[in-house]
This record gives sequence, structure tokens and C-alpha cells, in this order.
Amino acid sequence: MATLCRPAVSVPEHVITMEETLDLARAHHADHPQLPLALRLIENTGVRTRHIVQPIEETLKHPGFAERNALYEAEAKARVPAVVRRALDDAGLRTTDIDVIIYVSCTGFMMPSLTAWLINAMDFSSDTRQIPIAQLGCAAGGAAVNRAHDFCTAYPEANALIVACEFCSLCYQPTDLGVGSLLSNGLFGDGVAAAVVRGRGGTGITLERNGSYLIPKTEDWIAYDVRATGFHFMLDKRVPTTMEPLAPALQELAGRHGWNASELDFYIIHAGGPRILDDLSKFLQVPPDAFRFSRATLTEYGNIASAVVLDALRRLFDEGGPHDTARGLLAGFGPGITAEMSLGRWSRSDDRSALAEATV
Amino acid sequence: MATLCRPAVSVPEHVITMEETLDLARAHHADHPQLPLALRLIENTGVRTRHIVQPIEETLKHPGFAERNALYEAEAKARVPAVVRRALDDAGLRTTDIDVIIYVSCTGFMMPSLTAWLINAMDFSSDTRQIPIAQLGCAAGGAAVNRAHDFCTAYPEANALIVACEFCSLCYQPTDLGVGSLLSNGLFGDGVAAAVVRGRGGTGITLERNGSYLIPKTEDWIAYDVRATGFHFMLDKRVPTTMEPLAPALQELAGRHGWNASELDFYIIHAGGPRILDDLSKFLQVPPDAFRFSRATLTEYGNIASAVVLDALRRLFDEGGPHDTARGLLAGFGPGITAEMSLGRWSRSDDRSALAEATV
Repeated sequence: MATLCRPAVSVPEHVITMEETLDLARAHHADHPQLPLALRLIENTGVRTRHIVQPIEETLKHPGFAERNALYEAEAKARVPAVVRRALDDAGLRTTDIDVIIYVSCTGFMMPSLTAWLINAMDFSSDTRQIPIAQLGCAAGGAAVNRAHDFCTAYPEANALIVACEFCSLCYQPTDLGVGSLLSNGLFGDGVAAAVVRGRGGTGITLERNGSYLIPKTEDWIAYDVRATGFHFMLDKRVPTTMEPLAPALQELAGRHGWNASELDFYIIHAGGPRILDDLSKFLQVPPDAFRFSRATLTEYGNIASAVVLDALRRLFDEGGPHDTARGLLAGFGPGITAEMSLGRWSRSDDRSALAEATV
Repeated sequence: MATLCRPAVSVPEHVITMEETLDLARAHHADHPQLPLALRLIENTGVRTRHIVQPIEETLKHPGFAERNALYEAEAKARVPAVVRRALDDAGLRTTDIDVIIYVSCTGFMMPSLTAWLINAMDFSSDTRQIPIAQLGCAAGGAAVNRAHDFCTAYPEANALIVACEFCSLCYQPTDLGVGSLLSNGLFGDGVAAAVVRGRGGTGITLERNGSYLIPKTEDWIAYDVRATGFHFMLDKRVPTTMEPLAPALQELAGRHGWNASELDFYIIHAGGPRILDDLSKFLQVPPDAFRFSRATLTEYGNIASAVVLDALRRLFDEGGPHDTARGLLAGFGPGITAEMSLGRWSRSDDRSALAEATV
């Protein structure tokens, strides 16, 4: 059984508070007819602080797509290895124990993906499989967990490494003035997360079933407009309403597993925004407190895209983890509109040699 | 056992011959100091014709990354569904029988990937998994086969759809004047391919083992430089030498399977260029004729990136296929430098209902 072990997470050192975000919005968009709406939407996010790879003064400049993307690459190379190392240590594994690297990131584009550099720089085995995914956006954290689960189901002795590297601040587009863009400027943050899915042993969520769901005819609700200036994030105002059709999809997956999605012991949910969490709580009939890990991520880091679910899970570990065999749900949401969902049970390793190796 | 069924392939209607390519190179780069070398390299490719999505006059213009990418999307939407339909028909399946779509393409960038649109436009099930891969370049055709194989190993009743959509002509960069770029301008072509991997039944290659290999410290040998003008293809002159380290990787994979990579019954190899095929034939000690499918793809279509291996396999089907239980190797090569390799045996379906459904 594949076990999703403790994620390691790192956020950059440059911090911007909600007050600073609101002040900047007022200063930059003083004559914007919908400024009051944008300010209200930003306030409603509940995002108190975000961490970004550059000082905000630099972030607000657009030096060109080439420079932006070069910065993405440099920051990824500077920040990812330490997070990967911690995730491996926490799982009690070495780089050479890893059979597949699933690298998800939608905020920069490299070919080859960072996986090739990582294999060389960190001495992963030359036969490590690479699964780089750039096009699932915020749903990619859930997708990475699910593809790792599938891989370990196919090869029960295998171990997968998941890396989510998101520098949303590098997708800031000063000329995008729609309300959705102004809101996004106050919502998204940067972060790097990594976690191991162990085929055997390990402490964390033992993955039992996964599934994907695409809400029909919503493929343009969250999208990139690809231009000379880079990726322009397009956010339809109907996106916050998507929990109504997604809650039944979560219920159905749980039902097929003989579980009730409303009565699980823990929930690791993509914190796309506050309404996502409020609505899902309502439609799943789950107390808001059940989403406290996701809400804490949103409050402290903002929406860090595919890294959210890994950070929320990290907070569950930090709380001490639920009781053994506790049943839970992990779900990422993103463009498509796609939900990537998984069900699993908390388990603590009885593999003492693995625990002895782990340098938690 | 997962079976890779007959691929469907489509190439665009605009044809450019090698003579036209050479004439254009002479006309556009008359004062280029290395023109004679570039012409000789293009002649050596053996690429007689290529098929591209626009007339060559349009292809040689660069209207901007946004326009290029919008054209990519429009052409993909116009051309992919018919190819997918044929691949499904050939495999005797309907869209609702498909559990995962693996969409590989490195010549345009969309988020969400074309998978979301395909699911909506072709009535795939809403719970179809999406695995879009943009960053494995020419190796992605092999990677798609291998990830489909893994998925069907995890879920033996599942069926995977592979789509490779490559419009290399849309990555033409008029200002790139290095010899590698001039060569690429005469080497790459456009094509769309699709194939089904059936978990049960089907006629084709029953996949038995797969593997990946990264040649150490070569991650910058094939790469995209991402700029405001789009993706700039960077080709190191050492790339043609890579078959020397990759042949042992193929041998090792075969050896682990109890096979000898030099003595297989069929070979489906990425036709990156003529020397790739010549060298691999030499280092694997395989007669050149064994690579005739790849060579035919290269000659008639050019290097169509991730779609090459599917087109080469289509030609093996067109030849009537090898004898039952014939053993073969499929390998894609691309940035990393990465090889995605798989081993399988030819099998003809004994599932008569599936055959009856197939509209070959």
C-alpha cells in the first residue's frame, strides 16, 4: 500500500501583508472603476501574509518573459533541492530509493523540466522516471499524489517523489486590470513543497483510491492566455460556484469506496479561496474546522497553487496526525475545471529500520 | 496485459520538399558563413518531404508568440479529434471506455491542456484522468506509452488513450541563425498521432516492461530557451553522439527481461535524425533494415517529435505486423537527454467481440 509521507514545505523570505497588498492596489489602481470591489474581494480572501521570491518592488516590474522565466529557473534550482532533501529524510529514503519524480509547476516553463537537473544535481538514479506536469495548475498537487499512487499500485516496491514548485508572483501581469486579475494579485503566493509516496512502510496517508472529475464545459473558467509577456491568468467569476457540482463528485468517489465523504476524520482540500472552503464545507456538510489546515495555508501563505494540498497535509502532521486508521480525503482543484481526489487512511509505519533512518 | 493498439496518424496538407527547404535556406541565408555546412546537414537528414499546418510562406513569418500559440490551439482542435476517433475505432473502443488520456505535445502551451477540451468535445467520461506532458519533447511519445503501460498495470481493466500533437513548424524562429537551428528548420515536421493502450484484449504490442534512462549531465544538450517570441529550440552538436551511451541502457533493460536487445524481432525507434538511427543500428548490432519504419517516418514526414514512435509503429501495422509473440523494443529519445524505452510482444486479440466492434 502506497503511503504519502510528511511533506516538506518552504516559502520564500520576502513577505507581503494584506495591508500592504491593499495599499498597493489603492495606489496603483486609484482610478479603477471597480477598485472598491477588488479591495473587498482581496479582504475577503483572508490571506494575511504571502511569501514571494523577490521584494515586492521587483515583483511589480515586468522585465520580460525571458527574464521572468530565467528567474523561475534560478529560484527553482536554489530552493527545490533542500525541500526535496527534507522530504526524503522525513520518509527515511535516499535519492537512489526513488523510482519516479513527479514534478508539478505551472508558474514557469522549462524543457527539459527541472527533473533532469534534479536527477543530475542530487544524484538520483539515471533510471528514475520523470513525470513533469505543467498544465494542471492548482489541481496538479492532487494529480501528483494520484499519479504516485497509481505508480506504486503498478510497482508495489517503488517509491515516488512529488515536487510542487510554484512562484505565482512571477506570473504577475501589470497590464491585466480585470477584477479577477486584481483579486489574483492579492490571492496567490509562492511556495515549494515535496513529499514521498512510499510503496512500503512510511507514516502518513495510506492511499486507497483516487479519482478525477472534470466539470463539463468549464474549460475556459480558469485558463492561461499565453502571450509575449508570458502566462496571463484568466479567472472567471463563476469559479467560486464550483463546489456545488464538485461536492457530489467527492461523495460519489467516497461512496464507491464504502465511505461517506461527510463523515471522514480529516480533510486536505485545495484552498483556492475562502469561498471554495466555505462552500465545500456547506455542500459536504462538514464542520468548517475540518478544513483548518487548508485555511491556515491560505491565511499564512495565500493560494500557493499545486503546493497547497502538500502544505495543508504538512500542518496535519504538525498537529500530531489523527488516530491510526483515521479515514481522510485529499482534493486538489484547478483548471478544467478539474478535481483530483484521493481517499486514504492514516497509518504509522511499523517498519523500525525506516524510522531509525528518518532524520525527523 | 496492456496492449498498445494500432496508432492513427495524420499529417497536415501543406507539403515542403527537401529541394524547397534547401532553396529557402540558400535564399534566406546567402551570406551565412556556415551555409554550406547547414545545407550538407539538411541533405544528410534524408528528409524528403514534411507536412506543415500552414503554407511555407506563412510559416516563415513570426506574428508573435500569442498568435502562434492561438494557431497551435486552433489547429489542435481542428485535427486531433478525427485522429483520436480512428485510434479508438481501431482499438474497438468508445470514448467512454477510456480511463486516462495522456496528451503529449511540446510545440504549443495551453492551460488547461487540450485534454479538458477533448473530454468535453468528444464526450469522454467526466472522470477520465488527464496526464498532459509538455516537457519531455521527442521522448514524450515513449513516455506516454510507458505511463499508459503503468496505468494499465495498476488497473488491469483500464484503457488509456495516448495523443501526440506536434506542430514543430509553429516553433520556427527566423532570428535563430546557429547551425543547429538551420538544421532543425530542415528536420522537423508536423503530425498528430493517437493510440489506445487496452488493459484487456486488442491487437498490437503487449507491453511487458518499461524503463527510463537519463544520460548524466546532458540536460542542456536539447532545450528550449523560453522568450517573448516563444520557444527557441537549442540543439547541441553533441546530440548525435548519444546513441553510444544509450545503446547499453537499452541492452540493460532487455537483459533484465531476459532478452537480448540485439536480437529482437522488431524495433520502433525515435527517428531524431539519420545518425541516431545509423549509430543505434551500429551500437546495438542490428541490421539497418530493422529500423525501416523509423526511417520511413523520417523520410516522408521529418522528425515529428513525440509522434515519431507512433507513426513508426503504424507502419509496422501497415506491413501486416510481425508473427505472433514476436519480441520488440520501442524507444523515444528527447531532452534530458532522456530515453523512454519499452519491451513487448506482438499479440493478436482473441477477443472476438472487440474485433467485431473494430471498424478498421
